[in-house]
Amino acid sequence: MRRALQLASLGAGRTSPNPLVGALVLDAAGVLVGEGYHAAAGQAHAELGALAQAGERARGGTLVVTLEPCCHHGRTPPCCDAVIAAGVARVVLAMQDPNPLVAGGGSRRLRQAGIEVIEAVLAAEARALNAAFLQRLATGRPLAILKWAMSLDGRTALPNGVSQWISAAPAREQVHRLRAGVDAVIIGGGTLRADDPLLTSRGRRQPEPLRVVFSRRLELPASARLWQTDVAPTLVAHGPEAGPEARQRLARLAAAHPGLEVLALPQGTPAALLEALAARGCNQVLWECGPQLAAAALQQQCVQRVIAVIAPKLLGGQPARTPLGDLGLERLDQLPAWLPTAPRRVGPDLVWELNLPAAFGVH
Amino acid sequence: MRRALQLASLGAGRTSPNPLVGALVLDAAGVLVGEGYHAAAGQAHAELGALAQAGERARGGTLVVTLEPCCHHGRTPPCCDAVIAAGVARVVLAMQDPNPLVAGGGSRRLRQAGIEVIEAVLAAEARALNAAFLQRLATGRPLAILKWAMSLDGRTALPNGVSQWISAAPAREQVHRLRAGVDAVIIGGGTLRADDPLLTSRGRRQPEPLRVVFSRRLELPASARLWQTDVAPTLVAHGPEAGPEARQRLARLAAAHPGLEVLALPQGTPAALLEALAARGCNQVLWECGPQLAAAALQQQCVQRVIAVIAPKLLGGQPARTPLGDLGLERLDQLPAWLPTAPRRVGPDLVWELNLPAAFGVH
Repeated sequence: MRRALQLASLGAGRTSPNPLVGALVLDAAGVLVGEGYHAAAGQAHAELGALAQAGERARGGTLVVTLEPCCHHGRTPPCCDAVIAAGVARVVLAMQDPNPLVAGGGSRRLRQAGIEVIEAVLAAEARALNAAFLQRLATGRPLAILKWAMSLDGRTALPNGVSQWISAAPAREQVHRLRAGVDAVIIGGGTLRADDPLLTSRGRRQPEPLRVVFSRRLELPASARLWQTDVAPTLVAHGPEAGPEARQRLARLAAAHPGLEVLALPQGTPAALLEALAARGCNQVLWECGPQLAAAALQQQCVQRVIAVIAPKLLGGQPARTPLGDLGLERLDQLPAWLPTAPRRVGPDLVWELNLPAAFGVH
Repeated sequence: MRRALQLASLGAGRTSPNPLVGALVLDAAGVLVGEGYHAAAGQAHAELGALAQAGERARGGTLVVTLEPCCHHGRTPPCCDAVIAAGVARVVLAMQDPNPLVAGGGSRRLRQAGIEVIEAVLAAEARALNAAFLQRLATGRPLAILKWAMSLDGRTALPNGVSQWISAAPAREQVHRLRAGVDAVIIGGGTLRADDPLLTSRGRRQPEPLRVVFSRRLELPASARLWQTDVAPTLVAHGPEAGPEARQRLARLAAAHPGLEVLALPQGTPAALLEALAARGCNQVLWECGPQLAAAALQQQCVQRVIAVIAPKLLGGQPARTPLGDLGLERLDQLPAWLPTAPRRVGPDLVWELNLPAAFGVH
């Protein structure tokens, strides 16, 4: 099963809306005869790859798979049928598929076909691997990471707005890697106007994650690197509070940049945006936004992990540009219980992660 | 010499305005026959203790001492005379005494008396040990540390002002230890009004470091823990901009609390305060002040080390309460070159130190 989990992780960042799945087949004598993993949505499921590799040697053998085989018709036919047809004697699973279309139905079907099914092997590890997928199924929203870079005195820019660069090249490269593991990167209109960011993984993820501008006023620049959608897809999302003039501005912008996608949300809130992104199949997203949007996202439980890059610099400033706006807190003994990881040095900078403990999966 | 440096460090926090000094004596056969260190200002110098322990066995032997023996009359007679009288054949030194009253004069006097003098053994280590003393002699100001505790989003209080406690007990205890190593702890009037702090080492240093309130407006509370000078000495310092009313308020306060000391500075600046504290014999001080005073201290080169305690909490706030006020910076490529240490976990919190490289000693 550890090997199957390793295989599963090879698909990281490319399987959404599907989970990461790995599988292997042992023949009747216990010899490894096939391996597979789910490489991308629309491509073969892990079990099928492993069974295809094993061929006739699967008969009477064991299928080890990190997730319960599906029993429903999705983009691909049900895997259970293929498992039964392959003639394996035993299936070892790490966890049930939480998809309500499966949810134990796969295991039942296999048992009905006379196959021995052993469940919950390395279940915690499997849940941790698919924390983002589980988060989306449990809450209808993707697992969301909030990331910022700041000086040691908690500043995200100089008083005059200069912010490039606070962190050094190694930490900025690590942010590119972080983007390669998510399905969408979200900023607000202010960050777009201030930084004109590229927001890509610099080719580490293909296709690049969806770049999302979440704007209330839709006062967006006519020219921006995000409008070049040949590099990566871009979506502009707004709520119903955007007035007719703002929508006209956006329509003109979209007409000038045919690749640009526009999404009108039922509400102009971080929660509504994440629900829309989940519906589009995003399992995991990254907030790289300014303080007001970041604070709103935190207040709406739209952040499960915070990653702060801390540069050994002192920027000062009055008033201060800081990572977060008002969270509405009034007491220090009622803060959410964020769990810190061990801090890491990345070049000259320090990276510290906080995670919210979650009932439905280890983040 | 390593042993002599170890002996020297036993006096840490108690020798100001003097440096830390350790010494040992080997007899003519190279056997250790005496050890000493400078335990506190006004007490015997390290050489004298070691020579006294050695007695007649010092004759023809070697004195190893971390600092050049003095040749001037201070609170104690010149050590050179005692070294010569003890009849040692050789003196091994780590560094010259930078005190202009000595500055090589001690070594000359010993050589004139026919004693072999070997200099600059473990000189860098000796300079690092006495960085604070060297800083004061080189600049006329004590070595100054700026310390703050903040949340991971760079906040030092909730928007409503609540700030107790951001860091956890282990980090707060470490601050008590930090205070035990300094001669004075400085806050501004705002911190006094907001926090009513105790500012002691909780008995780790005896006497406790001087507690300094540096106030512009002298709007000080009639009752405060700092006014209880039986616990630790307290000094209220102000500049010439304090008007007659403010000075009257202060005089009434001092009359009500006879232990309270008042100091009128020639200028109401952090630099003037540090110069006054150096003149009173402070080698090392700790700023535990609010953002405006901290920023002013940084701008006047009155900080050589920053210690940030970072709690794994998110406080938010608009406007933000942050560690530093405006530093007048306009470009990110012209910041001072702070050298970060390895971050340390202290309880749930993270402690990260930045140091300014200095020509006159390792901080």
